[in-house]
Amino acid sequence: MFVEETLSQDAFLGGQVTLLQPKNGYRAGVDPVLLAAAVPAKPGDSVLELGCGAGQALLCLGHRVTGLSLTGVELQPPYVDLARRNGDLNEQTLDIVQADLADLPLDLRQRRFDHVIANPPYYRNGAHSPAQDDGRRTALGEETPLAHWIDTASRRLAPKGYLHLIQRADRLADVLVACTNRLGSLEVLPIAPRVGRAAELILVRARKAGRADLRLHAPLILHEHSTHPGDRPDYRAEVEAILRSGAALEWPK
Amino acid sequence: MFVEETLSQDAFLGGQVTLLQPKNGYRAGVDPVLLAAAVPAKPGDSVLELGCGAGQALLCLGHRVTGLSLTGVELQPPYVDLARRNGDLNEQTLDIVQADLADLPLDLRQRRFDHVIANPPYYRNGAHSPAQDDGRRTALGEETPLAHWIDTASRRLAPKGYLHLIQRADRLADVLVACTNRLGSLEVLPIAPRVGRAAELILVRARKAGRADLRLHAPLILHEHSTHPGDRPDYRAEVEAILRSGAALEWPK
Repeated sequence: MFVEETLSQDAFLGGQVTLLQPKNGYRAGVDPVLLAAAVPAKPGDSVLELGCGAGQALLCLGHRVTGLSLTGVELQPPYVDLARRNGDLNEQTLDIVQADLADLPLDLRQRRFDHVIANPPYYRNGAHSPAQDDGRRTALGEETPLAHWIDTASRRLAPKGYLHLIQRADRLADVLVACTNRLGSLEVLPIAPRVGRAAELILVRARKAGRADLRLHAPLILHEHSTHPGDRPDYRAEVEAILRSGAALEWPK
Repeated sequence: MFVEETLSQDAFLGGQVTLLQPKNGYRAGVDPVLLAAAVPAKPGDSVLELGCGAGQALLCLGHRVTGLSLTGVELQPPYVDLARRNGDLNEQTLDIVQADLADLPLDLRQRRFDHVIANPPYYRNGAHSPAQDDGRRTALGEETPLAHWIDTASRRLAPKGYLHLIQRADRLADVLVACTNRLGSLEVLPIAPRVGRAAELILVRARKAGRADLRLHAPLILHEHSTHPGDRPDYRAEVEAILRSGAALEWPK
């Protein structure tokens, strides 16, 4: 468990979601907020997050869409505890399961979800995830650890269910390789800091048993100006609405 | 051979390149011009085009950069003949080889090129290329025909040599899958008709033995207005310079 004094309590969605998280180490940023905003969940849908950390994405999604069944898998026990506390703190019902995503407990393996979401660690090629060291390593051959995440997501999705995943743009090839032969109807939304700049993040949507052609959308641009105007935040209005008001991210038609 | 009456003579790069091509069937468009513009070849470099058709991309590249050694491989004899005639017509020296790209003649297999370029046919998943029916089919396993093109390109590239490839955007995953473990330093340039629209084409740059992170660039936007202004062409100035004046396509830094 985290020592209480090492935690801070931070506000997201303009204060509508409150998150206890460690003051040091991984700090939740805009990525999980964008991920949650990108999911077209409807009341009554079931959602599974792989690697839910302190629960930020689940809480942001649960705030925007009421009546969801929210499940999170998290490997590290201190974060499992934190995610549960954050559920209580925000008066949301989260089912947080401590497990390795490559070795889910039986009751999870018997369930299918309408949505799977993930913000996998941004490890590099050649780096190891805990999952890579177990028996599935052989089965997945040469693939990167990211393939374990997408393989698990694919297995847990209901037919026509959606995976949404946010990742660094330089992992685009790894994500698409891992989706090949597992998921279809891929859509890639590049996320760029400013107009004319390369994407830094990608949001990827894929569908279980989807058969539509891949789509590479126009980038979502985060900031208004072409250079940073000093210390003032300058998110574009559409992005400000997502980050501060909990609006949905509208995928291009 | 094509019957003379079935051919038309068309002008590219504002009349600086003239192309004999069949009046019916595949007609050269902007794709090979953009491909040629994207290659940072320097005088003295060697260039191999896989599937060179009537030679449009080689001729556009040879027009912009003098002193290149230009080689094209083409499977279909009538196009081999046409590409040779187009070389003469434009007073450019093209070495056009009739061959299946999966079964290149020995002297080509003993050469390495500074640049390989390709504008592969836009076949669909599950479609067959001629190459897929020969002995290499087994070796390349589950991969798409596009993998044959990229595999051949990779084998023919000198160390640090560049592949440039133009392809429909919905083939993004296939292209990146085929590049994985063969080429590195991938750069993807989405090409979109108008601001805010999904990419229709992708230009992909990859480097033999490259080790840089993948980059997903801001899209190249072809047209000025957000909707089509009637019959008037409305290419953006940067694109007009490429298509009408033979300018280079400047990759983002």
